[in-house]
Amino acid sequence: MTGPTAEILTVGNELLTGKTVNTNASHISRELSEKGVPVGRITTVGDKVDEIATALSEALLRMPRYVFVSGGLGPTFDDITVQAVARALNRKLVSRRQVLRWMAEAKGIDVSDLTQPLRKMALVPEKADVIQNPVGSAPGLAIREGNTEIFVLPGVPREMKEILRLHVLERIDRVGRLVRRSFVVEDVPEARIAPLIDEVMKANSRVYVKSHVRPMVEGKSIIEVEVSMWAPEDGECEGLERAHRSLQQALMEMGGTVV
Amino acid sequence: MTGPTAEILTVGNELLTGKTVNTNASHISRELSEKGVPVGRITTVGDKVDEIATALSEALLRMPRYVFVSGGLGPTFDDITVQAVARALNRKLVSRRQVLRWMAEAKGIDVSDLTQPLRKMALVPEKADVIQNPVGSAPGLAIREGNTEIFVLPGVPREMKEILRLHVLERIDRVGRLVRRSFVVEDVPEARIAPLIDEVMKANSRVYVKSHVRPMVEGKSIIEVEVSMWAPEDGECEGLERAHRSLQQALMEMGGTVV
Repeated sequence: MTGPTAEILTVGNELLTGKTVNTNASHISRELSEKGVPVGRITTVGDKVDEIATALSEALLRMPRYVFVSGGLGPTFDDITVQAVARALNRKLVSRRQVLRWMAEAKGIDVSDLTQPLRKMALVPEKADVIQNPVGSAPGLAIREGNTEIFVLPGVPREMKEILRLHVLERIDRVGRLVRRSFVVEDVPEARIAPLIDEVMKANSRVYVKSHVRPMVEGKSIIEVEVSMWAPEDGECEGLERAHRSLQQALMEMGGTVV
Repeated sequence: MTGPTAEILTVGNELLTGKTVNTNASHISRELSEKGVPVGRITTVGDKVDEIATALSEALLRMPRYVFVSGGLGPTFDDITVQAVARALNRKLVSRRQVLRWMAEAKGIDVSDLTQPLRKMALVPEKADVIQNPVGSAPGLAIREGNTEIFVLPGVPREMKEILRLHVLERIDRVGRLVRRSFVVEDVPEARIAPLIDEVMKANSRVYVKSHVRPMVEGKSIIEVEVSMWAPEDGECEGLERAHRSLQQALMEMGGTVV
């Protein structure tokens, strides 16, 4: 994969006990892939300030273009992600009037009538951009740190998805797109396909080839082959077509049937 | 959380593009939690030797009791997890006759008739214990490194689950169990519950309390409270009962209705 990469950091004890399947990570990954931003790593930690701050600092050291943090933004005391982000970035937490106004408006009350737990959600790291949450109270955050843009999103799937869709994806630079081509080949021994794929990938360094052996049917080996690459936004993906063609050709020369 | 912890490292490009939801991580987490082994971190990386080796080395530096690695054990050239594990541990890969015999037996053929891709799966790091895969070819591995036990499992969910269930869970020391109690409270303002939970957790350092505010019904705030702790295997979980009781009592004194 080429181009700037993203990392995802999901926060929540329920993810570490297996109570919840991490569909937030797969949703964000999918959206980023469609937007042409490769994800390099996904990390999940529990609701502990130290562990979140450490995981974020480690991610920043790998200098990704984007880091997405999701989970732990709610009103209760165990929602400590914002505090952890502030610690990792060595920034103060400041109360943002804009967030208080959004919450008061959504509830049809006065800012002065907001409860303490709601006020807590208006505390954000200095110099963060706040992003309105269209379906909940906790705002999203966009924070620039060096060359990395950090997006902090709620863990409630509906809130995360809406903020991402409405306000975050437009802030992401499309760096390309993941283009995939796949086919199935029969009658080629497994043993011969691996070195061939290796050779094709060496000749086309930006192309990734993945093969998957399906269970044999009537003594025939059936192998699925997927060729993919991150193509630049303007559409050029010659390498992929070349790799795709030369793979198919070589497999047919070996007596394979390409389906 | 107390006691030794585990980490999980899942490998696969399909997890980073969001094509696949990481149910392997949640399955392993759930099994470990039920066995009383807290999971501290879950990391996902792509099919790259460097990234897998780096992520495993980082996990080992945190000195968990167990590391579970899943994915990338298949016959094709892009299944490079075993190679990465060997690199992280600075061990040679050696071919294991036992694995070849298992595969030949399962296919009803002679060891000498095994194809190259199958032979590849018999290459394992020196001094690894090999674990038979009852539903596939790639063996599981158990590798002791310092005080950490590393289990390497296939990424195919059915194979991972069967090896875990039949051969791995019995090798895990039960360190305790995660005990949970939860209740719902009405008629207490959100603002008053957070400091109370804080106080109860301070008084019972091994207890973890999580609250979740449900949407208001007829102007009433409904708050779910879950009290949990890692209790020792012999069953003593006084702290939990104490925390549970004192929370409920305090909430009722505030005029709350505990359901």
